[in-house]
Amino acid sequence: MSDPQVLSFRPKADQYVWTFGGAAPAARVAPGAVLELWTEDCFAGRVRGKDDLVSQVCEFPYLNPQTGPFYVEGAEPGDTLAVHLVSIEPSRDWAASTTVPLFGALTSTHLTATLQDPLPEVVWIWELDRSRRSCRFSARDSGFTAELPMSPMHGTIGVAPANLEVRSALVPDAFGGNMDTPEMRAGVTCYLGVNVPGGLLSIGDGHARQGEGETCGVAVECAMNTVLAVDLLKGLATPWPRIESDTHIMSAGSARPLEDAFRIAQADLVRWVAQDWRLSELDAYQFITQAVEAPLANVCDTNYTSVAKLRKDWLGGGVATMRGAHERLKEIARAYRG
Amino acid sequence: MSDPQVLSFRPKADQYVWTFGGAAPAARVAPGAVLELWTEDCFAGRVRGKDDLVSQVCEFPYLNPQTGPFYVEGAEPGDTLAVHLVSIEPSRDWAASTTVPLFGALTSTHLTATLQDPLPEVVWIWELDRSRRSCRFSARDSGFTAELPMSPMHGTIGVAPANLEVRSALVPDAFGGNMDTPEMRAGVTCYLGVNVPGGLLSIGDGHARQGEGETCGVAVECAMNTVLAVDLLKGLATPWPRIESDTHIMSAGSARPLEDAFRIAQADLVRWVAQDWRLSELDAYQFITQAVEAPLANVCDTNYTSVAKLRKDWLGGGVATMRGAHERLKEIARAYRG
Amino acid sequence: MSDPQVLSFRPKADQYVWTFGGAAPAARVAPGAVLELWTEDCFAGRVRGKDDLVSQVCEFPYLNPQTGPFYVEGAEPGDTLAVHLVSIEPSRDWAASTTVPLFGALTSTHLTATLQDPLPEVVWIWELDRSRRSCRFSARDSGFTAELPMSPMHGTIGVAPANLEVRSALVPDAFGGNMDTPEMRAGVTCYLGVNVPGGLLSIGDGHARQGEGETCGVAVECAMNTVLAVDLLKGLATPWPRIESDTHIMSAGSARPLEDAFRIAQADLVRWVAQDWRLSELDAYQFITQAVEAPLANVCDTNYTSVAKLRKDWLGGGVATMRGAHERLKEIARAYRG
Amino acid sequence: MSDPQVLSFRPKADQYVWTFGGAAPAARVAPGAVLELWTEDCFAGRVRGKDDLVSQVCEFPYLNPQTGPFYVEGAEPGDTLAVHLVSIEPSRDWAASTTVPLFGALTSTHLTATLQDPLPEVVWIWELDRSRRSCRFSARDSGFTAELPMSPMHGTIGVAPANLEVRSALVPDAFGGNMDTPEMRAGVTCYLGVNVPGGLLSIGDGHARQGEGETCGVAVECAMNTVLAVDLLKGLATPWPRIESDTHIMSAGSARPLEDAFRIAQADLVRWVAQDWRLSELDAYQFITQAVEAPLANVCDTNYTSVAKLRKDWLGGGVATMRGAHERLKEIARAYRG
Repeated sequence: MSDPQVLSFRPKADQYVWTFGGAAPAARVAPGAVLELWTEDCFAGRVRGKDDLVSQVCEFPYLNPQTGPFYVEGAEPGDTLAVHLVSIEPSRDWAASTTVPLFGALTSTHLTATLQDPLPEVVWIWELDRSRRSCRFSARDSGFTAELPMSPMHGTIGVAPANLEVRSALVPDAFGGNMDTPEMRAGVTCYLGVNVPGGLLSIGDGHARQGEGETCGVAVECAMNTVLAVDLLKGLATPWPRIESDTHIMSAGSARPLEDAFRIAQADLVRWVAQDWRLSELDAYQFITQAVEAPLANVCDTNYTSVAKLRKDWLGGGVATMRGAHERLKEIARAYRG
Repeated sequence: MSDPQVLSFRPKADQYVWTFGGAAPAARVAPGAVLELWTEDCFAGRVRGKDDLVSQVCEFPYLNPQTGPFYVEGAEPGDTLAVHLVSIEPSRDWAASTTVPLFGALTSTHLTATLQDPLPEVVWIWELDRSRRSCRFSARDSGFTAELPMSPMHGTIGVAPANLEVRSALVPDAFGGNMDTPEMRAGVTCYLGVNVPGGLLSIGDGHARQGEGETCGVAVECAMNTVLAVDLLKGLATPWPRIESDTHIMSAGSARPLEDAFRIAQADLVRWVAQDWRLSELDAYQFITQAVEAPLANVCDTNYTSVAKLRKDWLGGGVATMRGAHERLKEIARAYRG
Repeated sequence: MSDPQVLSFRPKADQYVWTFGGAAPAARVAPGAVLELWTEDCFAGRVRGKDDLVSQVCEFPYLNPQTGPFYVEGAEPGDTLAVHLVSIEPSRDWAASTTVPLFGALTSTHLTATLQDPLPEVVWIWELDRSRRSCRFSARDSGFTAELPMSPMHGTIGVAPANLEVRSALVPDAFGGNMDTPEMRAGVTCYLGVNVPGGLLSIGDGHARQGEGETCGVAVECAMNTVLAVDLLKGLATPWPRIESDTHIMSAGSARPLEDAFRIAQADLVRWVAQDWRLSELDAYQFITQAVEAPLANVCDTNYTSVAKLRKDWLGGGVATMRGAHERLKEIARAYRG
Repeated sequence: MSDPQVLSFRPKADQYVWTFGGAAPAARVAPGAVLELWTEDCFAGRVRGKDDLVSQVCEFPYLNPQTGPFYVEGAEPGDTLAVHLVSIEPSRDWAASTTVPLFGALTSTHLTATLQDPLPEVVWIWELDRSRRSCRFSARDSGFTAELPMSPMHGTIGVAPANLEVRSALVPDAFGGNMDTPEMRAGVTCYLGVNVPGGLLSIGDGHARQGEGETCGVAVECAMNTVLAVDLLKGLATPWPRIESDTHIMSAGSARPLEDAFRIAQADLVRWVAQDWRLSELDAYQFITQAVEAPLANVCDTNYTSVAKLRKDWLGGGVATMRGAHERLKEIARAYRG
C-alpha cells in the first residue's frame, strides 16, 4: 500500500465552526486521506478553573466548536462517508466538567419546563494522567477523590444535514453531530450518510471519559489530538449513523422521547443484519432481541441518542459489511503509522 | 392615523423559500407596514387531483414553501415582532389532503420506527365554497359526504431561528415555524422573538380548516391570499411564540414528547400572567390550572405543538399586555381597509 | 315510561373506597336505575383552610375517596356500562386546591425525577356561589381576585380493571378512573367497558371547575351531590372510555407519554366513526383530522389523558350510536325528575 | 454459621399467581432462609412448538405465572427485602420466543396506537445446551443458525405494591415486577422495598438469555430451577429496586417515557452514593455522570425499565452498603451449598 495523503489541521480560534452545514470547507481531501486534527473542548477553552462558570465565561451560541468541515472529493447525496478514528489523545493534563443551569437529565430544562429553581452551577476540574491513562476526580464538597480509567472519545462527529438545514453543533440527529456516545473511541469506523456535495465532515467535543447517558449533560471535556482516516462508499445510503469496531456493529438513533431513539437504532440494526447477513426482517428482529447490547449515549441533548450494538462473531464470518471499509481503513491507519 | 405602508408580494415558483433562516430577504418593511401576500399550499401546488401522490409528484425537501422572508427594519435580537393577521382567504375553490407514508400520528414514522408496512397513500380533494364558507368532504371508499365550516388559518409562520441555525419549513420550534395551530386565524396577533437582524418573517401552509392535533399530518391544504400588519416591540424578548386575540392570550410550546410542549406553553403562560397582571408565579400557576384551555396544535410534526389559552376578561381589565400591540395593529388594519 | 328504580347512597367515612377493583359492592342495581350519590372531595375532606397542607393532614394512600362500587346486575366482561350524569352539584360553598410536593405538570415528580427542590406547598380556598354559578379565586400573595364560571364535573369515574388488577383511585386507564376531563359534566353519557361481573362502578373527585390539563395537578376540589342513570349494553365491548353529549361523541385515552394518550383517543374515535357511520378507516382518519377537537384532560396523573371530540351533526343524522343509550338514559332522567 | 432454613417449592398449575399483591402466601419464611424454587415460563408452558401461537394457545390474562408469594416474617412497610440469587438453571433443553401482535418495541401497540396491521405472529424454539452453556437460534425463513452464550436471568421478581394496588405480573414498577433486566442473574442481591406485611415476594419469567431492551418483547423464555436466599433489612426504605453484585451497585427505574425510567434510576443511584459514600448530591451527580453504565432492561412492557450501574471499586473500599446484606447472603449461600 502506498503512503496515504496526510492533512494536518489545527484551527485557530476564528476558524472554529459552530454548526453542521452552513460553513465553508476548511480543506478538501480525497478518499483514503488521513487527517491529523486538533479539537478544542466544548467550552471553546474558556472553562479553566473552578470559578469559570459557563453562564459567565462562555458566549452563547458559541459552544462546542468543531474542527472542519472537510470536503471529501467525490462525495454526493446518497453516498456514505466511512471515518476511521485512528487515535484520540487528550492534549492537556486537565479536563473540565460542570453543571449548566437548566441543562442535564436530572434537572428541569427549557423544554421540560418547570417553575422550580435551577440547580447550582458548579465546575469540576479533572486531572488527566496521560501516562497512567487515568482521570482523577476531586469532590467539591468533601475530601472524596477517585481515579477512573481514561477512555477518550469524541462526543461530536457529523456531516452537513439533509433538508437544507444548518444545525447547532449541540444537536445529534441523522447527520450524526452531538451523539455523545462513549462508543466513538479510537479504533472504530463511523459511517455517515452524505447529504450535500463533499459531505462536509466535522469533529469536536472530545471527552477524556463519559458515562452512558451523560447524566449531568457535561462529560470530562478536553481538547484532543485526533487522527482520522476517511473513505467514501459510493451509491450506498446510510440513513442513521453506524459504527463498526473490530468486534461489533452498532447503529445510533437520535430522537425524543428516548424510546424513539431506541426504536431507530434497533430498527436500523435489524435491517442492517437482515440485508448483509441475509436474514428475513422477522428472524433478524428475533435474533437481535436476544443478542443486542443497548448502551445509552446521551439523555440530555436536543435529541437523545441510543446505540444498538451487536457482536459480529455471533453472526458468523464471511461477511464484509459496509463493503469492508473498516478493514480497509485499518490498513490505511497501519500505513500511516508506518 | 395616516395610511399604512402597503407591500404586495406574490412569489414566483423560483422565489419560494423552504427554510426559516438562511434565505435572503424578499423585501424590507418598516414597523407598521401592511403586507398583502399570496402563499402556495404545502405541496407547492403539485397535488391537484386524486392521482397526485405526494411521494410521486413532490420533490423532497421542496415542501411547505414559504412566502418571505421579510426584513423588518430596526429589528434586532432581543426584540419581538408583532404580526397581526388581518385576513386569510383561500385563493382556489378546492384544497387537498393526503396520507403521506410514515408521517402522521396514527402510523409509525421515521422516528417512531417499526417494522410494519406504511399505511396506503391516499389523496382527498376538498371542495371549498367561499361564499358559503364551507369545505366539502367526499369519502374515497363510500358515498359519505360532509360539509364543515371553513376556518382559514396558517400552519406556518415564523422568523429566523437562534443559535446560527437554519430549519426546514416543516419544523415548529421557539422561532415559530410549522406550529399548525388552528388558533392562527384572521384577527389574532402573533408575537415572535427576534433572533437575527430584521427578524426575517415568513408565512405559508394555509389550511382551509384543520382539527386539533392534525392527526393524519395533513390539513385541508390550500393557497391563500393573506394580509398582515407588522409591528416591532423593541427590547422585549419573547422566548416562545405568543398569540393574542380580542378575547384570549395564548402561548405555543413545541417539543417532544408532547408533555414537554404542554409544559413549555403552560409555563410561559404562567410567567406571562405573573409578570403583566402582577401575580406571584404560584398564584398564576393555581389560577391558570383552573382557567386554561389547552387546544392541541399538531401531534405529527418534527416537534409537537401545544397551546395554552386564557380568556383575557377573566384576568380583569386595565392591562395592555405586550405593550398594547394587538389594539394598535387592529387600528392599522382598520386604516388599511379604509 | 315507568318510574326508574332510585338508589340513594351517601358513604360514611369508613365506607369510602380507594381503588378501582378489589372492593366489595356498596349496592347492587339493575340496568335503568338512578343513583343519588354524594361524593367527598379528593382530600377526603381534610383540607378545609389555608393551613391544611396535604402532606400534613392527609394520610397516604387514603386519597381520592370513591363512592361505590355499584354492582350492575347482568354485567359481564365484554359488555359496556352506559352512565348518564343527570346532575352534579357542589355540596359546600367552598372548594380547595393546592400544590402537592413533586406532583403536577410544572414540577419534577417521583417519575420525572430531578435533584431540584420541590415547589412550596400552598393551599387556595375557592368560594363557590351556587346561585350565581361562580367560583371566586383569591391570590395568596397579592390582592388579585377573579370570578370564574362554575362548571361542575367528576375527575374520577370508572369500573374494576381487567387483568386481575386493583388500581389506586388516582390512576386513569382503560377502565376509566382518574381521567380528570372537564368533559365529564352533567348531561353526558359515559361508556365504560366491563371487565368483571357487575362492572363495579365507582365515582368521585368532584371539581367545581378545572382547566384543560389540570396543570398544577389539583382542580377546584369539592364534595358533590350527583345523580346518575345507569344502563347496560350486552355484548358490546368498549376498549377505552367513551363519552356522548347531545352534540358530541368523545374518546378518552390514558397513557404516557402524552402522544400515546392522544393516539389512543384518536384511533378509537376513527374506529368508532368507521364502524357506526360506515366509513373506511382511512376515510374516517381523514375526516377526523379536519374535524376533531382535542381537549386535554390531565397532564399530571399516573397516566395522562387526552380526549378526541367530534360534533355529531357533522356526521349527518340517522345513526343511533352505542345503541341509542344516550337518548334512552335521558328519558330515564326525565322520568326521574318527574 | 449454622445451616440455613431451606424451603423447596414447585407450584402446581393451579398454584401459579398472576399478580403482585392480592394473592395469599404460598409459604412463610424467616429472614436468612434459602428457597429452592421452580418457575414456569411466561407462556405458562403452553408454547412448545412453532405452531403454538400465543394468541391461540395462551389464555389472557393468565400470562407470566409467578412462583410465590413468600411471606417474610417480620417484614413491614418501610423495611427492605434483600434477595440473593444463588443459582438460576434452565429446567428444560429448549426455550421459546415469539412475536406477539401489538406488543414489542418495533411495532405499534395498544398504547402506541396506529391504524397499521400488526406484524405476523411467529414462534422460534431455541435449543439449550446446558453442558456447553449455549442457546442455539435457527432462523425460520433461512438456514441461518447461531449459538449464543447461555446467561440465565429472571425477568420478574418483586413484592406486593404500595397504594393498595394489585398489579399484573406483566408490569414493572417501584415494587419490582417485570423489569426484564439481564442484570438479574445468579450471584446478585436484589433489594426491594416492603409495602405490605410480609413483603410477599414472588419470582418468575426465566430467560435463558435476553438482549438489553428486550426489543421484540419476548426473551428466550424457559422454566427455571432457581435458588434464593432472603434477608430482611428493618427500618431501611428502598424506594426503587436496587441490585448489588460483587462488582457493581445498580438502581432500576421503571416508567414511561423511557427518559423518566432513566431519570429515576440515575437519581436513585446519585442519592445512594451520596448517602452511603458521603458525597454531596452534586458531587455524586458529577461523579456518576462520568462513571455510570446504563444498560437498558426493557423497552416493551407497561413501563420501560432502565438500569444505572456503577463499579463499586471506583468508589473506594470500606463501605458496606445496604448494611452488608450482599456479603451476608453470600455466606448463607455458601453454607447452603455445603
